[in-house]
Amino acid sequence: MLKNNRYIRAALSQPVDKTPVWMMRQAGRYLPEYRELRAKAGDFMSLCTNPELACEVTLQPLRRYQLDAAILFSDILTIPDAMGMGLYFKTGEGPAFKSPVKTAADVAKLPIPDISDKLKYVTDAVSLIRKELNGEVPLIGFSGSPWTLATYMVEGGTTKNFGEVKGMMFEQPQVMHQLLDKLARSVIEYLNAQIESGAQAVMLFDTWGGVLSTQNYQDFSLNYMQQIVDGLKRNHNGEQIPVTLFSKGGAEWLELMAETGVDCVGLDWTIDIDKARARIGHKVALQGNMDPCVLYSTPQRIEQEVADILAKFGSGSGHVFNLGHGIHPGIAPENVKAYVDAVHRESQQYHSG
Amino acid sequence: MLKNNRYIRAALSQPVDKTPVWMMRQAGRYLPEYRELRAKAGDFMSLCTNPELACEVTLQPLRRYQLDAAILFSDILTIPDAMGMGLYFKTGEGPAFKSPVKTAADVAKLPIPDISDKLKYVTDAVSLIRKELNGEVPLIGFSGSPWTLATYMVEGGTTKNFGEVKGMMFEQPQVMHQLLDKLARSVIEYLNAQIESGAQAVMLFDTWGGVLSTQNYQDFSLNYMQQIVDGLKRNHNGEQIPVTLFSKGGAEWLELMAETGVDCVGLDWTIDIDKARARIGHKVALQGNMDPCVLYSTPQRIEQEVADILAKFGSGSGHVFNLGHGIHPGIAPENVKAYVDAVHRESQQYHSG
Repeated sequence: MLKNNRYIRAALSQPVDKTPVWMMRQAGRYLPEYRELRAKAGDFMSLCTNPELACEVTLQPLRRYQLDAAILFSDILTIPDAMGMGLYFKTGEGPAFKSPVKTAADVAKLPIPDISDKLKYVTDAVSLIRKELNGEVPLIGFSGSPWTLATYMVEGGTTKNFGEVKGMMFEQPQVMHQLLDKLARSVIEYLNAQIESGAQAVMLFDTWGGVLSTQNYQDFSLNYMQQIVDGLKRNHNGEQIPVTLFSKGGAEWLELMAETGVDCVGLDWTIDIDKARARIGHKVALQGNMDPCVLYSTPQRIEQEVADILAKFGSGSGHVFNLGHGIHPGIAPENVKAYVDAVHRESQQYHSG
Repeated sequence: MLKNNRYIRAALSQPVDKTPVWMMRQAGRYLPEYRELRAKAGDFMSLCTNPELACEVTLQPLRRYQLDAAILFSDILTIPDAMGMGLYFKTGEGPAFKSPVKTAADVAKLPIPDISDKLKYVTDAVSLIRKELNGEVPLIGFSGSPWTLATYMVEGGTTKNFGEVKGMMFEQPQVMHQLLDKLARSVIEYLNAQIESGAQAVMLFDTWGGVLSTQNYQDFSLNYMQQIVDGLKRNHNGEQIPVTLFSKGGAEWLELMAETGVDCVGLDWTIDIDKARARIGHKVALQGNMDPCVLYSTPQRIEQEVADILAKFGSGSGHVFNLGHGIHPGIAPENVKAYVDAVHRESQQYHSG
């Protein structure tokens, strides 16, 4: 039994006493205790692949702030790594793969990874975190979306123009579909394994869906997220598992996302949440949507922004407060406290209890 | 008198025989003759600041393709450079400033540059290009938008998170407004000087407007573009000067852009042009909106995409065909020919002549 189930209830559009709040990348570099542990561990993947360390990092922000959910500390690229692509991190440049996927033959030989072997470190971390959380707040599991994983796999790392992955999409659409289908099947197994190990909600991060045209978004990103949504164990041990879908830069496609049947749609800050609620808020809950850069300013300015977003959403449930993207490394930890506390304090007026 | 005035007429929503076409960054690195001249000139700014070389580079793509407009070859950061900020280019990292703007005092001491002195190399290039074009096609002048210029000026170069410029915006909005006001006044003088020197149309590139929330976009980007639109000489020597406004990632704000009174609104590829036309196409012309990455594929695939976009726009004038962002350096020049020719060939059916 959860002591605080505000996040689960809001993500399922059920009544709550206060609007729940968490932050994407809440376990991360803005926290000195994270940086300390990271320095000891050596590199980023050593943190991810060690269940004890991943658990410790996951819990760090919950000791500082009254967050309504924990999110598994991991990387979005664990699946391609488990496929044998050799994930590593270049200092200051982000993730990269030793063997990028460039040809039809490269795609053909990619295995669907055996989650119980190659990604046991993730499910072990999930089990451990669930145990350590001791029912305080729910644990969110996650994965990158197939399209987002494919961008890194084909480009070999981060990219500015998406020329190679879109080149494959426009020139060899059938090869791209094969890749995305393998990824969708892997993500289904991966998220279901997280649910079986104790994740009480799951989220799909479609970080790069927003670089596509509407038709390409539907064909190459949403289509495979739909496949995943349809394949997830959305009830586990009698509990409903809320599913959130977040396509950054996807304001144009909110209706399409809501039609997948997910419980909650994530918003970045480029769309007003009142407009988003008018468009799809009767069908799904909404997550978001403060510009993470507001956290660079003062507690007063942060509180004002939180109040504005809450007022825009208005009365009733179906709102999970969050940033519109992950928190940046340079944010002062005390500003996060102002953000979390403001959501709880200012939101009570919009809920009847 | 222009021999080919299709671009001007379409940007003013007047009837044309075929849809005009050009490309953002059409004079650039994808052309071997550009790379050759650039290597001879040394660095990028040596090309921009030498009117003969800037003219030559501007004309290069017009010798290869049946483009309906030339666009001044220059950089969007000439104004901050003229303010004394010391623009330079780091290899592989893009533009940077020797003295970024970090404080209220930095903003206070920034001068409005004397265009006739500090930016004479630009107006000289405009005059020379006009002469060399000899009335074949119109010449488009341009500037970065105040917000876009401010992002580079405050961050000191390119940025991923916009933390510093948004930090100033959220914490010291009055300082940011002072900076943007200085920039808007400078851009008005700059674009009017380009018009007086021979630019027959102008375009405002708001490359980073799309990283803002709706309210911040209105207050910190659109507000200053409105000031510019109101200050431009939109009639020169009896000719109307079409003004185009392009906020990348701005699909959410098309109505607001159209309300500024510009003649044409630029679209990136994330919104369908039929939807954009339904929303604002009765008020303004539309520019766009093919994903530049389509040019990585085959002539057949490019022709299909061009035909799709033309069909979506449908019959009648008010469409300037373009990419949704600048052409990428790795594109094969022969693919550009397929794109340009397809627009002319496929669009005739949508115009009554």
